[in-house]
Amino acid sequence: MAVYTEVADEELEAFLEPYGIGQLLSYKGIAEGVENSNFMLHTSKGTYFLTLYEKRVAEKDLPFFLGLMNHLAGKGFACPVPLRNEHGDMLGRLADRPAALISFLEGVSVRRPQPRHCAELGRAMAEFHLKGRDFELKRENALSVSGWRPLLDACGARADEVVAGLAAELQAELSTLERDWPRALPQGVIHADAFPDNVFFIGEKLSGVIDFYFACNDALAYDLAICLNAWCFEHDGSFNITKARALLQAYTEVRPLDAAELAALPLLARGSALRFLLTRLYDWLNRQPGALVNPKSPVEYWKRLRFHRRVTSPAEYGLDI
Amino acid sequence: MAVYTEVADEELEAFLEPYGIGQLLSYKGIAEGVENSNFMLHTSKGTYFLTLYEKRVAEKDLPFFLGLMNHLAGKGFACPVPLRNEHGDMLGRLADRPAALISFLEGVSVRRPQPRHCAELGRAMAEFHLKGRDFELKRENALSVSGWRPLLDACGARADEVVAGLAAELQAELSTLERDWPRALPQGVIHADAFPDNVFFIGEKLSGVIDFYFACNDALAYDLAICLNAWCFEHDGSFNITKARALLQAYTEVRPLDAAELAALPLLARGSALRFLLTRLYDWLNRQPGALVNPKSPVEYWKRLRFHRRVTSPAEYGLDI
Repeated sequence: MAVYTEVADEELEAFLEPYGIGQLLSYKGIAEGVENSNFMLHTSKGTYFLTLYEKRVAEKDLPFFLGLMNHLAGKGFACPVPLRNEHGDMLGRLADRPAALISFLEGVSVRRPQPRHCAELGRAMAEFHLKGRDFELKRENALSVSGWRPLLDACGARADEVVAGLAAELQAELSTLERDWPRALPQGVIHADAFPDNVFFIGEKLSGVIDFYFACNDALAYDLAICLNAWCFEHDGSFNITKARALLQAYTEVRPLDAAELAALPLLARGSALRFLLTRLYDWLNRQPGALVNPKSPVEYWKRLRFHRRVTSPAEYGLDI
Repeated sequence: MAVYTEVADEELEAFLEPYGIGQLLSYKGIAEGVENSNFMLHTSKGTYFLTLYEKRVAEKDLPFFLGLMNHLAGKGFACPVPLRNEHGDMLGRLADRPAALISFLEGVSVRRPQPRHCAELGRAMAEFHLKGRDFELKRENALSVSGWRPLLDACGARADEVVAGLAAELQAELSTLERDWPRALPQGVIHADAFPDNVFFIGEKLSGVIDFYFACNDALAYDLAICLNAWCFEHDGSFNITKARALLQAYTEVRPLDAAELAALPLLARGSALRFLLTRLYDWLNRQPGALVNPKSPVEYWKRLRFHRRVTSPAEYGLDI
């Protein structure tokens, strides 16, 4: 749940004026995301989404995020598009914050994804990767392998408060990943946060992907490893190979994985599990009593990490190799 | 800002099915109200509002609130209308809570109402009172004069923490009001919470009134006294007689006040100021560190109370008498 910046009617109307989107009919602060304040607007011309960027999103990164949405949508990828105002700007200011008016994307996120949803996701991620390749801006992945050591240093000593022995296990795991991390895989823009919350469906069809605020340049197959972790494990922690097969087959039909990517998949999946394990561990150990957001337990990502460590071939993810 | 009950896609779809409102396209939890969890829905047939009633609204009162909306809307009053499902019910259950699907009312609440907004409000309140008169259900006003003594007992002793001398002043004021409260004024259904937050405009025109969850039976003129307090004082605490005149004139053009109502207006305004002063004082003194909702200061209603105590004739509210 988000913390909101309140926006007064007269300020909002002044902000909207240069966008030429007709008369404001209603606006509602919505409970989505934790980084930003979001509003849903109805005007005489349609429905829009308004985002005010709070301090967790670095202002210098906004041209990358908004530019990427614009780039991908321009190539037919299903995602929200920032509107330009009459000055040609996608980024303005409202309530003393950077603010963007964005097209509203219809769709519902699925709490219990089924294999058919995973297949839709696979196709969409491959399209995302192909269509993003010629996007001209760059943004380093602050949460890739080089970013994990500082996170572990900041909270690893207390990891045993969560699971006995976890501190030592994380040290060993990170050392292995730092040593073996594949650095020559095909690179490009990745979404880096394509969790079920951020993928919308209407009925059985994927209607679009949202929340580009972790997007960055990295190995494309790493994005797929993030999806494997986020979509293909059951609530009881078990791996669902049917979902993984659906995801990977649909992806590779649009963008085939090369031999190095295939071989790296188990390691990338370990890395992705460690990345979410570390950020969740940090948030968990630093949670505030009475805070708005209940941090997610890091334990489920620890279990996923252990699963991937036992994987010896990408065939175990359901790929026909 | 509200605390939300999360609703999963499959649960929501099952809840919506018997309403026949087409395919669900999107739903967003919205940050409106503190008593309930509210969602805005788009379906293939339009936009809807979904409310899950949390524990601050008594379930036994819901037929009154929903029935009143239905009654008023049926008479052409601009307000949201609860939909009936195929079983004829306006009230269902979702996520283990009472839940209602309600038509979505377009409009924007005005942070700084102008006299023209007050005039629109006056007409709407008079219509509300006239159209509500034959509504068959009854609900006592738990926050009228007989409810103020228990509130004062619960927090009055600490009132001096807010303003020195306030405890004694409130005791004296309440004794006066209990003794002099007018009990023979025209009665009917009142909104009882028609603050600017709850009145929507599109451009200059009032588009509707929302939030019926304090509605009850009481003196109609008391509702107008609530509006006087909520709409006709400036942020600096000063009384704006132009706004009051606009409000009262527009009201009386639709529903004239009788002599007893006119004479009672200053006392009703004192009572209304005391009612909001007491609930705000209670919330203020019982606020929790780190709570989601910042309670409003009771001080502004104390200033209003003092203003009304000095009023000797309803003419001071701008009425031509």
